[in-house]
Amino acid sequence: MRHAEEILKAVQSGEMEVDAAVEALHRSAYHDLGHSRVDIGRKARRGTAEVIFGEGKSVAQITEIAGSLLAQQQNVLATRVAADKAELLLKAFPEADYHEAARVFTLQIHEVDPVESRIAIACAGTSDFPVAEEARLTAEFFGNPVDTLYDAGVAGLHRLMADVDILLNAKVVIAVAGMEGALPSVVGGIVSAPVIAVPTSVGYGASFGGVAALLGMLNSCSSGISVVNIDNGFGAAYLANTINRL
Amino acid sequence: MRHAEEILKAVQSGEMEVDAAVEALHRSAYHDLGHSRVDIGRKARRGTAEVIFGEGKSVAQITEIAGSLLAQQQNVLATRVAADKAELLLKAFPEADYHEAARVFTLQIHEVDPVESRIAIACAGTSDFPVAEEARLTAEFFGNPVDTLYDAGVAGLHRLMADVDILLNAKVVIAVAGMEGALPSVVGGIVSAPVIAVPTSVGYGASFGGVAALLGMLNSCSSGISVVNIDNGFGAAYLANTINRL
Amino acid sequence: MRHAEEILKAVQSGEMEVDAAVEALHRSAYHDLGHSRVDIGRKARRGTAEVIFGEGKSVAQITEIAGSLLAQQQNVLATRVAADKAELLLKAFPEADYHEAARVFTLQIHEVDPVESRIAIACAGTSDFPVAEEARLTAEFFGNPVDTLYDAGVAGLHRLMADVDILLNAKVVIAVAGMEGALPSVVGGIVSAPVIAVPTSVGYGASFGGVAALLGMLNSCSSGISVVNIDNGFGAAYLANTINRL
Amino acid sequence: MRHAEEILKAVQSGEMEVDAAVEALHRSAYHDLGHSRVDIGRKARRGTAEVIFGEGKSVAQITEIAGSLLAQQQNVLATRVAADKAELLLKAFPEADYHEAARVFTLQIHEVDPVESRIAIACAGTSDFPVAEEARLTAEFFGNPVDTLYDAGVAGLHRLMADVDILLNAKVVIAVAGMEGALPSVVGGIVSAPVIAVPTSVGYGASFGGVAALLGMLNSCSSGISVVNIDNGFGAAYLANTINRL
Amino acid sequence: MRHAEEILKAVQSGEMEVDAAVEALHRSAYHDLGHSRVDIGRKARRGTAEVIFGEGKSVAQITEIAGSLLAQQQNVLATRVAADKAELLLKAFPEADYHEAARVFTLQIHEVDPVESRIAIACAGTSDFPVAEEARLTAEFFGNPVDTLYDAGVAGLHRLMADVDILLNAKVVIAVAGMEGALPSVVGGIVSAPVIAVPTSVGYGASFGGVAALLGMLNSCSSGISVVNIDNGFGAAYLANTINRL
Amino acid sequence: MRHAEEILKAVQSGEMEVDAAVEALHRSAYHDLGHSRVDIGRKARRGTAEVIFGEGKSVAQITEIAGSLLAQQQNVLATRVAADKAELLLKAFPEADYHEAARVFTLQIHEVDPVESRIAIACAGTSDFPVAEEARLTAEFFGNPVDTLYDAGVAGLHRLMADVDILLNAKVVIAVAGMEGALPSVVGGIVSAPVIAVPTSVGYGASFGGVAALLGMLNSCSSGISVVNIDNGFGAAYLANTINRL
Amino acid sequence: MRHAEEILKAVQSGEMEVDAAVEALHRSAYHDLGHSRVDIGRKARRGTAEVIFGEGKSVAQITEIAGSLLAQQQNVLATRVAADKAELLLKAFPEADYHEAARVFTLQIHEVDPVESRIAIACAGTSDFPVAEEARLTAEFFGNPVDTLYDAGVAGLHRLMADVDILLNAKVVIAVAGMEGALPSVVGGIVSAPVIAVPTSVGYGASFGGVAALLGMLNSCSSGISVVNIDNGFGAAYLANTINRL
Amino acid sequence: MRHAEEILKAVQSGEMEVDAAVEALHRSAYHDLGHSRVDIGRKARRGTAEVIFGEGKSVAQITEIAGSLLAQQQNVLATRVAADKAELLLKAFPEADYHEAARVFTLQIHEVDPVESRIAIACAGTSDFPVAEEARLTAEFFGNPVDTLYDAGVAGLHRLMADVDILLNAKVVIAVAGMEGALPSVVGGIVSAPVIAVPTSVGYGASFGGVAALLGMLNSCSSGISVVNIDNGFGAAYLANTINRL
Repeated sequence: MRHAEEILKAVQSGEMEVDAAVEALHRSAYHDLGHSRVDIGRKARRGTAEVIFGEGKSVAQITEIAGSLLAQQQNVLATRVAADKAELLLKAFPEADYHEAARVFTLQIHEVDPVESRIAIACAGTSDFPVAEEARLTAEFFGNPVDTLYDAGVAGLHRLMADVDILLNAKVVIAVAGMEGALPSVVGGIVSAPVIAVPTSVGYGASFGGVAALLGMLNSCSSGISVVNIDNGFGAAYLANTINRL
Repeated sequence: MRHAEEILKAVQSGEMEVDAAVEALHRSAYHDLGHSRVDIGRKARRGTAEVIFGEGKSVAQITEIAGSLLAQQQNVLATRVAADKAELLLKAFPEADYHEAARVFTLQIHEVDPVESRIAIACAGTSDFPVAEEARLTAEFFGNPVDTLYDAGVAGLHRLMADVDILLNAKVVIAVAGMEGALPSVVGGIVSAPVIAVPTSVGYGASFGGVAALLGMLNSCSSGISVVNIDNGFGAAYLANTINRL
Repeated sequence: MRHAEEILKAVQSGEMEVDAAVEALHRSAYHDLGHSRVDIGRKARRGTAEVIFGEGKSVAQITEIAGSLLAQQQNVLATRVAADKAELLLKAFPEADYHEAARVFTLQIHEVDPVESRIAIACAGTSDFPVAEEARLTAEFFGNPVDTLYDAGVAGLHRLMADVDILLNAKVVIAVAGMEGALPSVVGGIVSAPVIAVPTSVGYGASFGGVAALLGMLNSCSSGISVVNIDNGFGAAYLANTINRL
Repeated sequence: MRHAEEILKAVQSGEMEVDAAVEALHRSAYHDLGHSRVDIGRKARRGTAEVIFGEGKSVAQITEIAGSLLAQQQNVLATRVAADKAELLLKAFPEADYHEAARVFTLQIHEVDPVESRIAIACAGTSDFPVAEEARLTAEFFGNPVDTLYDAGVAGLHRLMADVDILLNAKVVIAVAGMEGALPSVVGGIVSAPVIAVPTSVGYGASFGGVAALLGMLNSCSSGISVVNIDNGFGAAYLANTINRL
Repeated sequence: MRHAEEILKAVQSGEMEVDAAVEALHRSAYHDLGHSRVDIGRKARRGTAEVIFGEGKSVAQITEIAGSLLAQQQNVLATRVAADKAELLLKAFPEADYHEAARVFTLQIHEVDPVESRIAIACAGTSDFPVAEEARLTAEFFGNPVDTLYDAGVAGLHRLMADVDILLNAKVVIAVAGMEGALPSVVGGIVSAPVIAVPTSVGYGASFGGVAALLGMLNSCSSGISVVNIDNGFGAAYLANTINRL
Repeated sequence: MRHAEEILKAVQSGEMEVDAAVEALHRSAYHDLGHSRVDIGRKARRGTAEVIFGEGKSVAQITEIAGSLLAQQQNVLATRVAADKAELLLKAFPEADYHEAARVFTLQIHEVDPVESRIAIACAGTSDFPVAEEARLTAEFFGNPVDTLYDAGVAGLHRLMADVDILLNAKVVIAVAGMEGALPSVVGGIVSAPVIAVPTSVGYGASFGGVAALLGMLNSCSSGISVVNIDNGFGAAYLANTINRL
Repeated sequence: MRHAEEILKAVQSGEMEVDAAVEALHRSAYHDLGHSRVDIGRKARRGTAEVIFGEGKSVAQITEIAGSLLAQQQNVLATRVAADKAELLLKAFPEADYHEAARVFTLQIHEVDPVESRIAIACAGTSDFPVAEEARLTAEFFGNPVDTLYDAGVAGLHRLMADVDILLNAKVVIAVAGMEGALPSVVGGIVSAPVIAVPTSVGYGASFGGVAALLGMLNSCSSGISVVNIDNGFGAAYLANTINRL
Repeated sequence: MRHAEEILKAVQSGEMEVDAAVEALHRSAYHDLGHSRVDIGRKARRGTAEVIFGEGKSVAQITEIAGSLLAQQQNVLATRVAADKAELLLKAFPEADYHEAARVFTLQIHEVDPVESRIAIACAGTSDFPVAEEARLTAEFFGNPVDTLYDAGVAGLHRLMADVDILLNAKVVIAVAGMEGALPSVVGGIVSAPVIAVPTSVGYGASFGGVAALLGMLNSCSSGISVVNIDNGFGAAYLANTINRL
């Protein structure tokens, strides 16, 4: 939390060893683009590179931030990138990938350190697909093997039970659901792994854009469940990666 | 919807037969107590006697209304009667019964026409007991045989499945749950009978006094489910009786 | 709730009779399309085929699911299908029907077992028409005779009373209303049949997209009323069919 | 809106006539009690004396304000006065009256100019009694003849229709209701007089302390209805008096 | 509330005089267009013709309803008519008028009985203009002389005070405001006439589409104020006409 | 608060000095454009000219109001001006400036009295840029020197600490943040200057259009913080100017 | 932001001057009581001592924290201290003062550096007294001269105008109001000083515990207004002191 | 998910091995107490024994459930146990412990398998103590070593930084905060471990019983954070134990 000048002075005065200074510099580094201060130190500090939240950013801004990350030899993940923006980004970065349903843009310039234990992603309905996919792509971006179990809502639990091994074999489970959001409660009653619940905005009327699902998950009678923001597939996968690497 | 004077004039003029007039009088009858207009005609019109909503009424008012119903040879059911009021009511009506957990007061002066098909009442947790019991007592008051399956929430579905026959054998199912209110969705995926969902105010924090459960039930991904007000065990049982007698 | 492999092993071991196994297989069947797990067993389990919730599904997905149902000799009903999607679907299934106001898509390949008792559908205003029609088409899809009483809101009750026989002759009544949602309360005071209330998003300002109507219906002072989600004409009719067939 | 000093200077300078100055002084008068600035000019400005909102004021404060009004030969009306405060106030003002259900305290030291046309007050249920009575007492305090029609909710409309003449004969109608608040809509469909709707906090669960009734009334499909705050019987009667005296 | 057949039978039997029957028929008349039941009796019952709520109705439906009213020699007022619908309606009814800002469509085929006393309409900001104009056009449609005082919000009260005579000379005042909705409170402190408050959806952020203004008006510390729905200029003017004609 | 006629009479009668009258006239001046009453007196009364809230006003209206201000030799600032409107306005006022991201339109015809002390504007993320810029342009329009510190959210506090001098050197700090809105709390813990918090509508899901940030700021555990409406960069800068000039 | 050990090491290594170290130590000092970390450095960092938020703290905890502050020669201010707690605190600190209406506890062991410019506090109604007094006592605790103008709501603006000089002479104005919270808007239209708006929980029904007032203030059409939390008289005065000392 | 009878039949038929049957029996076991179905199988299924949610349960019920668990040689943890209930429970179980601030009741009859890695619990203010302690006691009940860092809110971040090693050394961090709930965002920016955020109901006014903190945490700009229900210290610790044991 102290910036470069102070660190360098400390080195100069002999108060700080060079090794410690290098790490401190890494942790506190950022790249000032005027509109953005790219948190280059995040990888050193938190273990994963900064990720670009694509919503509300222009193509020019995303391009600059991506460039800044690439210059640091960091892979690029941008979420919530609309299709028309992605088209332009792909021209700037032809080697990148865009996943339209999930609105995810990735540019992987080097391998990520893989992990062996698995993440399971279950979702309740076909309409939850985009959020579940955002989670899957994020988890894979960070090097995790993922198994999916889609359209397995509580109105027909046999569809879930048929592939229950996917859940039982995972080190972390992500459960994605809109409408009443009951899936994490049921999953939480079955597995002993931590369950990350993702409410989606799927529904109408009194679903209030995902509020019903969010409240359902926060009030789950199953223990071992925690919740992220509505439609936040990315956040769930980021956390799942953190846990999966413990 | 036309009152006594008009009916009598119609009889006098020959426009209305006596039989029709008697029925019309029955349907439109009420007893004016000043503070209340007891809907004595409800039994003729809707098949069941008026029920006393005990909350916000004084013991004197409940006593008068009960007296008015008894005078019409109608059984008395009062809901949401606090224990201290009940104590006084029981002195006025020693032959009556009071069920403390459910806050239900009943005085049955004659047998109700029994029905053979059964109503099942499931609840998710021990804390939902009072609402489930209000439903059970109401359903039995109207002459229905009831089976119960309590504390069978989705955090341990085997507890529900162990007695799933109770659900499968019922003509109507009442599913009572607080917190995330997921029980009706699961029940609705299993049975083919209509399911009446009752959200309860059980929970804390983001349960918002039952709103989380209410929204969960309104957004159920299972079909064949309808919902009544939070903690409205009475309303669910009233409707269940109506359906069970079809 | 146990899947095919277990059932077959149980038959092999002699633990399960063939007849029971056939029914169990029917009940737990589903068709995995990757994006969707079509609940083919729903008809065996719940008495009616799975219905396609059209919102948030692509034409390709709906086409595949419909094909999966048709392959099982099941009629197809898809709700909330936008007009532009419907146009493409009608090319794929020329024998199907699309009802634009109600956004309902149907393909009936065989007769449904008819029922004699009637369902009444009343709505409060002209603007509630689409939701009322979704209910009517669903109810008829499942084989029920339906009578309608449209634009009969409480601002001019004589319009309702003029055709009150439609309500009195029905085994179940669906009451559809936006704005203050008072219609079900009035209907509930007149009929002895169960009343399914459907709030609609019709209104403006403090109607909050149907919340005012929803709350009004949940707090109805008439008994025997239950409520479904805002604009959920389908759900009301599904439940009405369940009750009408008792 | 200009205070005494300016008015007096204007008289001195000849800019203002004495008569006009007297009226101006009356209109802008207030009595500063430190904690309160009693709006003595309200009677000259608005036609009715200031009324004491009893909630959140101490007995000492109410006593002082009442004294200030009495010193101006104005009658005293205090609303929302709790029973324990009223007991003390009655000792200070033995000639006053306290109406416990309505929590209304009155001290009438001179006759109010009576009005001939009538105000009708209808309420939906017995539990709405306190609010309806606050309205009745306020309306009578201001000199209006009042007719009441209590416990006439929409679950049994014949109870309302039996005394519909009360509504038809009134120059203004106040309709009081909790729960779904449908009464004003029905009344509004019958009468041609203005209807003032008063939502009450009567109800439970999704009534949210009167919000359901409030929203119902704001969204009424009947025209000619306006709404006051939840439980605001006083405000409705104040406005009714204003209209009744036109 | 009883329909034609009953009335005619009553005449036949001598129970009802012909004059009374004519009035009763007028009061209960409606015209069934299938999609709509035009309440032709409203004029006899409530003093003003039915008005067409244009939102959510097709041009064909509005045309039919207008035709039904014209056939009864009733003037036509349609509110919330979008500009593109209005263009088509004006082709069908070339003698009609359309007021774009207010989205009001009128067709006056005969003079309305004029009234002498005046209605004042004040609004807080320029952006409240459309709602204020809907109120003005409605009030004039019903034959009332109207004075306006626009853009006179509380941030510069001298703008209001400059024309305070407009308020003081009115028999009824309509006060229209968005944002914090404080105008009615200030107006209510000045005039003795009834004040009808209209919250508008003007604002952003925490105005929540008019909720802030609505709550402000419901909680006004000035007495004699009542409130209609957000943006409901029509409803305010309808009520103002009712009061102005007392 | 008294208008021209009265003031002139007071001068005529000798009650008011000419100097005082001139100031009074300045303070109460407004220009009536029919749709708008331009508060020309605001500069005399409040120290700054009236500003045009561009949302919901037509180009013609903005042009007229701007003309009215220019005629008074006042600079023009219009906020929330959409790009298409701005294009037309720039044709009418070629010497004006339009700042697209901030949607701010300015026309400075004379220098503003400059102030020496500085205003700091910090924002949490790149997406908060438009609101922060609205604040910056407003503050500069009123003559304040501004320093900015953008994209310095609490997920990487070293980015804030690196330029903490900007905050420590300011007389007032504006802290802009969406999502959880934690930035003002952290800033408030560091500086001793007053902090004006601006919640933005940046976020998704449970950010509810800025409500999460708004609530966070209202509940800040740091003292010395006050809050303006969501996205109200203008209001924050207006207040900052007021404080900076003390 | 670096703690003692690091500072001392820096001094030892010669990297930091003693003077700078003393200030840094002061800024980062805190006293760890186990349950609380008393921010002793706040005075050095922010100019005012830490204040004790009394709600939810035991008498023992408050006593310990007060002792910790006194040991640092800092005056003690505790807000939201219930009367029964205060009684015990006064026994422990006999020289302290307790202000019951405002629930404020103060112990001033030395003079605060006084300021000459004045703070004005206006409140709308008598019931807002406790919040206004919390603000007054806080402002005076920090050494500011305060003028008050109580019970001057917009229902009788002449009461405000009579003492408008109090507002015009202040360097900062605090405007306190419950119900519709319109007072700050009116004040903001009159003065050129910054206005700090404090919504109170005074009101009933749709005031929702102060939400109506809060929203009104956030949406004020007057500029130069900012808002603090509901009932947060302390926060307003803290900020007012900060501004008054600029 | 299949109950005892089926399992035994499968053993009898040879379809199931005895070992598998024993495990299946353990997983599906429950103890039916009438009011409760104690999920004895939870330990086998989820790794931890069922925990008693004390709120809304009578002392008799808690005693019975505790007895049922003890009979299975399982430790007993009951949360949200009021002090008066605890007093009675301690008489029944003299060897148990009750922690009043946290309302936690524990009875540990055998050692839990300890884990080496540590859990850190930080809370923002002294008033968050009870929730933080519920988390600590739960985590320790399940065998985890816990470090605490209390009263370290963002208004004085140096208090957090002083003991930042506690956070950096933990395998999981629980961050507890009321008011604006910013602590988890700041912690999430520092550590690489998963952060479980617990909003508390500490605050007043616009904190809405913890909603402000809840929304703040759901919208955190830091990644790797997930949220549990308001005041749910237990749930956070349960999940932390699950993760800590991975």
